Amino acid sequence: MRMWLPYLRLITNMESIRETRMEIIGEKINTSRKGVERAVRERDAAFIRDLAERQAEAGATYLDVNSGLALYPEEEAEDFAWLVPVIQAAVDLPLCIDSARAPAIETALKLHKGRAMINSVNGDPEQIGAILPLAAQFRCKVIALTSSKKGGIPATSAERVKIAESIAKKSQEYGISLEDIYFDPLVFSVGTDQGSGLLFLETLREIKRSLGEAKTVSGLSNISFGLPKRKLLNHAFLVLALGAGMDAAIMDPTDKSIMALVQATEAVMGRDPFCAGYLKAFREGRLS
Amino acid sequence: MRMWLPYLRLITNMESIRETRMEIIGEKINTSRKGVERAVRERDAAFIRDLAERQAEAGATYLDVNSGLALYPEEEAEDFAWLVPVIQAAVDLPLCIDSARAPAIETALKLHKGRAMINSVNGDPEQIGAILPLAAQFRCKVIALTSSKKGGIPATSAERVKIAESIAKKSQEYGISLEDIYFDPLVFSVGTDQGSGLLFLETLREIKRSLGEAKTVSGLSNISFGLPKRKLLNHAFLVLALGAGMDAAIMDPTDKSIMALVQATEAVMGRDPFCAGYLKAFREGRLS
Repeated sequence: MRMWLPYLRLITNMESIRETRMEIIGEKINTSRKGVERAVRERDAAFIRDLAERQAEAGATYLDVNSGLALYPEEEAEDFAWLVPVIQAAVDLPLCIDSARAPAIETALKLHKGRAMINSVNGDPEQIGAILPLAAQFRCKVIALTSSKKGGIPATSAERVKIAESIAKKSQEYGISLEDIYFDPLVFSVGTDQGSGLLFLETLREIKRSLGEAKTVSGLSNISFGLPKRKLLNHAFLVLALGAGMDAAIMDPTDKSIMALVQATEAVMGRDPFCAGYLKAFREGRLS
Repeated sequence: MRMWLPYLRLITNMESIRETRMEIIGEKINTSRKGVERAVRERDAAFIRDLAERQAEAGATYLDVNSGLALYPEEEAEDFAWLVPVIQAAVDLPLCIDSARAPAIETALKLHKGRAMINSVNGDPEQIGAILPLAAQFRCKVIALTSSKKGGIPATSAERVKIAESIAKKSQEYGISLEDIYFDPLVFSVGTDQGSGLLFLETLREIKRSLGEAKTVSGLSNISFGLPKRKLLNHAFLVLALGAGMDAAIMDPTDKSIMALVQATEAVMGRDPFCAGYLKAFREGRLS
């Protein structure tokens, strides 16, 4: 029954194989997470480097950087000015600059090597006018929430897609390519709204249908808020979202069980030629 | 963070809640499985009863019964004549009579209480002519493979859908309702054919699109044949198939991890009002 051995031998340079097709945005460098707020306040570079390295080793393709607990806007910019070089000296990964404040984002982008991602813009015209010029200037990718200041998060997929379309239109006016926009269809817990998972999946499919090249992204943990055994729901949500075409997830790449499931899902979906990524992960003990 | 407690209280009669929306066809009473061949040959009713009870307790909604290792056709019929009453005396579940031989199936159906399922018919005219009259006579559900004797298993989804359509047409001539046919889109291992998972999902969606009321079904283990950590691939496959609309699976319901994932997937897909089935499973320790 050891039929997988011949496949292992087929692959001569396993190290060069990309483990997964989806973008994995590591979520751990966030001041709302345990220990990170202290590390950022005290400029504890070793702590931040460790978080960055562990996420990179586990397979992250972007690292989210959030200092949203900063007390005043200038502090957030100062935090980014310290964080971005510290992280990029430790790992060779692009960062996902997680803030709603354009000046703080700009400070981060000026120091960033390579093409960053901005997290996030939404359908609010003021936000669009502040964030998209930065994305254009620094050739960034952008996460775009399908919500707006005025209407909040719409209750129907049609309204969410409409917001996505208006952001897409504006992006193209700024010369930002559609394939660089990652739309977040947004999801609530199925504990409070049982239709919210299906609404997410429907919105995601509609965005892909309407906006062709555009990408999609989501966090994984909202779906399970307030329910027990959250990981189980997050796992099911991730596989369903990948099945519907999701391109990226903001998640914890150091969670071995979910990374193994991503690997298996990519294999089942035919995105892993010869199952080489899956077999490499197995050989390296990352599937258990 | 114990936000799930209020939901538990909302549900007054938890026992009456159906755990999952998908049909779970327990696969364990099969003479190709360890111990079962001996138990059937020696008419070891306690062994068979135990297999039936454990699958029923774990949440099976049908029990597959297969004595395919019988040496001659009459022996298979005799096996069914013994198995069907033994199993139905132990558990209150319909059976899925798993055989290619019409006379053996007929013997089983004559003894079966309630509406059985036949596993299976395919696109071969001889098979159709032998199996569908039995399904009509005994008001059975039928699993229909999208393959034929002549062409084997077609390489494209269009050809598989064509076989499904021809079986559907014949079924209606026999007065069998479309919603009682469970089409199996068929799947090979992604270890040998990397596109086989996608082909399965595409075929499943096409069958649902073309044949409206018709149901779909699959086994879970072919997808991972020859690869390591098979459960991981089977899990990803199951969630992807449910996401594409699959209605039933032939599987091992005593595998707690996959049953927990089914429960989570149903909740995320909004098929579990108030997450009541999920919370009941949690309370009963079935999610860990």
